[in-house]
Amino acid sequence: MQLIQTLQEMQALSQNWQKDKTIGFVPTMGFLHEGHLSLVEASTLQCDTTIVSIFINPSQFGANEDLSSYPRNMERDLQLLSSYKVDYVFIPTAEDIYPQFYRTWVNVEGISEVLCGASRPGHFRGVATVVLKLVNLVNPDLMFMGEKDFQQVAVLKTMLSDLNLHCKIVPCPIIREADGLAMSSRNTYLSGETRQQALCLSKAIHKAKQLYSQGIRDIKILLQAASKIIVDNNAEIDYIQFVHPETLLPVEIAETDTRMILAVKVGKTRLIDNAQLRA
Amino acid sequence: MQLIQTLQEMQALSQNWQKDKTIGFVPTMGFLHEGHLSLVEASTLQCDTTIVSIFINPSQFGANEDLSSYPRNMERDLQLLSSYKVDYVFIPTAEDIYPQFYRTWVNVEGISEVLCGASRPGHFRGVATVVLKLVNLVNPDLMFMGEKDFQQVAVLKTMLSDLNLHCKIVPCPIIREADGLAMSSRNTYLSGETRQQALCLSKAIHKAKQLYSQGIRDIKILLQAASKIIVDNNAEIDYIQFVHPETLLPVEIAETDTRMILAVKVGKTRLIDNAQLRA
Repeated sequence: MQLIQTLQEMQALSQNWQKDKTIGFVPTMGFLHEGHLSLVEASTLQCDTTIVSIFINPSQFGANEDLSSYPRNMERDLQLLSSYKVDYVFIPTAEDIYPQFYRTWVNVEGISEVLCGASRPGHFRGVATVVLKLVNLVNPDLMFMGEKDFQQVAVLKTMLSDLNLHCKIVPCPIIREADGLAMSSRNTYLSGETRQQALCLSKAIHKAKQLYSQGIRDIKILLQAASKIIVDNNAEIDYIQFVHPETLLPVEIAETDTRMILAVKVGKTRLIDNAQLRA
Repeated sequence: MQLIQTLQEMQALSQNWQKDKTIGFVPTMGFLHEGHLSLVEASTLQCDTTIVSIFINPSQFGANEDLSSYPRNMERDLQLLSSYKVDYVFIPTAEDIYPQFYRTWVNVEGISEVLCGASRPGHFRGVATVVLKLVNLVNPDLMFMGEKDFQQVAVLKTMLSDLNLHCKIVPCPIIREADGLAMSSRNTYLSGETRQQALCLSKAIHKAKQLYSQGIRDIKILLQAASKIIVDNNAEIDYIQFVHPETLLPVEIAETDTRMILAVKVGKTRLIDNAQLRA
């Protein structure tokens, strides 16, 4: 496992990938958990070469968000990765990714402005831009991303396709704690009461899926039942929506592939989760 | 010389360029003149493989601009190119470049909003986006562009560098008619009186350069002299500016590398030209 800390090193490598090898890429912001590691494992199983990047991308954080407090532990991250067949860990600096006079931004219109994009203006512009830069630097065939960030996957799939990039996304299932909480680096902000409250997201999903399996297709009923669980847990709903899995547009009648997607504030921590209604 | 009309064909080729060959790319909107052909020649001299694209990019035309009347002559273009060592001519359709639900746009902030960007809102967003798509499709090492579109070159250089793309731009000098008019596909809109009036751009540049060579450094004096020539020819100044060649920010005192850049309306035709003050 080789560390790469400059863009020049990364470019020198990626310009010379052998054409008959499949290159897998797992972009992360570090503070790795089992969700990330499942992506790393998927890449090592499907690809000849695996690159993991660790970069906390400042441009995807809003002015009042948690950039400065976002959890970091590089030593632990590298130790965790060393148990997998990772070939390269790319750790660029923010100064190299966004040099002085940096000016170029990518917007995926429409799909970036709903759901988390509505609550976090500019977030997906930052995500799309950094991922485009990383894809150009790493030059992968496949990029492994977790479905926990369902909208992120949809935005980036659209971007790669619209911009005629060769790289394809492999979406991987959400990894959960034993009690149902979707794994997230931000779970480290939770403890005691808030950790218990945080279960309301997966419970709300469970309830909606249960109602769906009982034949209920009216979104209003599903929404009401899910919202009640959040409110009963003294958490604050940012949004709960039932959307088409590609366009992310809201549906009125639940269908097989309808995605339930929600963002909830538990104490000061904003958490997200999602699931297809029919498991 | 092989014609390529689908994105799939282009991608299949460009994914398999040999690493030890230099790939040159000349993006055009067709209706080729000697300016374009000088780029083609430069590419064939410097590169092992040359690809020319012909694509009138709808997204860089404003609602009230000349997209529908923009001159076209594919047969003549292909005949002209056949005299050069062009390997591939890439002629995508607008439907393939911008399929239904196309959503992704690239903005190079600041530098896209001045000069022509101020007169043509959204123009450079369209240019940056289509060139990024073409670069992804063609995967060239070098891209040859005329300095007649000086701001375009500056915007695209910034984009390629900001997005960490491997491709570099080779700017090539403006090619002029014998009487000084910078070559442009839009010159076809000129005839008789307007063709004569159109000389005011190169005459204004000539005057400013003359004054500069006489030791005048005060932009106000250069601007006044240049403006007088445009006005005396009954043409309409869109802008005349003296700028830093990379940032395109206006300067107050002319220096060696100061670029004079102007846009002028002659009848209904908007023309542009530019030059370094010290030849």
